[in-house]
Amino acid sequence: MLTRIDHIGIAVSDLEAATAFYASTFGLTVVAREVHEDQGVREAMLIVADADAGGSYVQLLEPTRPDSPVGKFLERNGEGVHHVGYGVDDITAALATVSAQGVRLVDARPRHGSMGASIAFLHPKDVQGVLTELVEAPKRR
Amino acid sequence: MLTRIDHIGIAVSDLEAATAFYASTFGLTVVAREVHEDQGVREAMLIVADADAGGSYVQLLEPTRPDSPVGKFLERNGEGVHHVGYGVDDITAALATVSAQGVRLVDARPRHGSMGASIAFLHPKDVQGVLTELVEAPKRR
Repeated sequence: MLTRIDHIGIAVSDLEAATAFYASTFGLTVVAREVHEDQGVREAMLIVADADAGGSYVQLLEPTRPDSPVGKFLERNGEGVHHVGYGVDDITAALATVSAQGVRLVDARPRHGSMGASIAFLHPKDVQGVLTELVEAPKRR
Repeated sequence: MLTRIDHIGIAVSDLEAATAFYASTFGLTVVAREVHEDQGVREAMLIVADADAGGSYVQLLEPTRPDSPVGKFLERNGEGVHHVGYGVDDITAALATVSAQGVRLVDARPRHGSMGASIAFLHPKDVQGVLTELVEAPKRR
């Protein structure tokens, strides 16, 4: 079902500093910047492996307000890995499969994620403490 | 410098249960099981994307003793993401580069990791709270 590690979502307190660090230290390139006000997060996507090599990213996440999910995570844990996103070919089918296995869904239906993807989160308590995201990337033209 | 997300290292309290979960729920296959007594850890590597697609794994880690690094992590945090491993082509060169950027190295020299790789950890305090591992996979024949 899982086709790749799509991204590592990392909660950071200073998006510009973290982005500059990943660029200068690891040579990664920013390919997208987005603000999702409904989620209270601004983010940068840095490419690790391009689409021909699977399409894998580091996603740096800074809260836009302290009561957002990433804001609460930072207050509780400090900076660190917030979630892991895995690629799937068909997110609707994947959600049905994992739900049938007893995994609770944070998102019962896919919603819009970064870079045009359809995404959904699974409940971390049912996935060994890992907030797990399924990602169906947009079809390439 | 980074060529792929090599693996997500996840600390679990019950390796057999976690391995069975990832196999049945996500359809992943175990490709290696190892015990590293020096690190106090037993582990299973489950393949997400094969070598032709970059070589990405979920690494499930169970402590063999409570005073090991993974044992202490579990006691402090419970189950969850323990570290992130990124592929590099030349780990010696990569360590020199990141060290020159001011990142402290947990392993000043590469050591033996899972599945024949040469690996080294970077200090999480210098990488936005993320325990970060560099992985040079063994050359394929």
